[in-house]
Amino acid sequence: MLDLSNTQGLLMRIDFEKLDGLVPVIAQDYKTGKVLQLAFMNQEAWEKTLAEKKACYFSRSRNKLWTKGESSGHFQIVKEILVDCDNDSILLKVKQIGKAACHDGYASCFYKKIEKGKETIVEEKVFDPNKVYGEKK
Amino acid sequence: MLDLSNTQGLLMRIDFEKLDGLVPVIAQDYKTGKVLQLAFMNQEAWEKTLAEKKACYFSRSRNKLWTKGESSGHFQIVKEILVDCDNDSILLKVKQIGKAACHDGYASCFYKKIEKGKETIVEEKVFDPNKVYGEKK
Repeated sequence: MLDLSNTQGLLMRIDFEKLDGLVPVIAQDYKTGKVLQLAFMNQEAWEKTLAEKKACYFSRSRNKLWTKGESSGHFQIVKEILVDCDNDSILLKVKQIGKAACHDGYASCFYKKIEKGKETIVEEKVFDPNKVYGEKK
Repeated sequence: MLDLSNTQGLLMRIDFEKLDGLVPVIAQDYKTGKVLQLAFMNQEAWEKTLAEKKACYFSRSRNKLWTKGESSGHFQIVKEILVDCDNDSILLKVKQIGKAACHDGYASCFYKKIEKGKETIVEEKVFDPNKVYGEKK
């Protein structure tokens, strides 16, 4: 069980200045090592993630906090938190609920491979986005 | 052997607009799945990476192109390129020359684990930065 007690003092260590209040955050499957997603956190999202042990990001498109899974139920349970040398990037090792991180229905958002002059989809769809988010998505 | 012929037409697909000309790029070891580093590319770095099949980034601190390994010899040979759903993040699967991506001497830049109110270094040093970069680093 991830113990994040007394982490408050560490909040100052994350460098949110370089990207106007944001840091990039990698979500990686804690068992398989698959990279699931790249998203951003502001300080509030970071604190909420530490408090709830579920990944919370800052949505640049919606300009608000976004607990991953709040619409889909596909939460990311935080199993491990790593910070990089410069304190300006975060790596979350997570248990991905629903087996899919991507709103397009794939396990990983990185489902397009570039090779031989084209993009090829290299993952199978895990869910139908229309069913999870509604037809208007 | 990674075939990146005729990828020029795909260059338009990367969305460099959201971060003022940059996109975040994850470097992951192509064999072990270890996440090595988070860096940024601008369009020029992206094109250079495609052309040379060695990771080239844009250094925000030095404000210039930065071929990973140009000082240390620790190049990242690109084995696979994946792009995310929104075309605004890139995942490079690489062969890390010198067994270390981090300028602090660790295999991964993500060598600090947050738990129980403190940061703990969770990797062994692979090289001595003073020897690789010189004493003034």
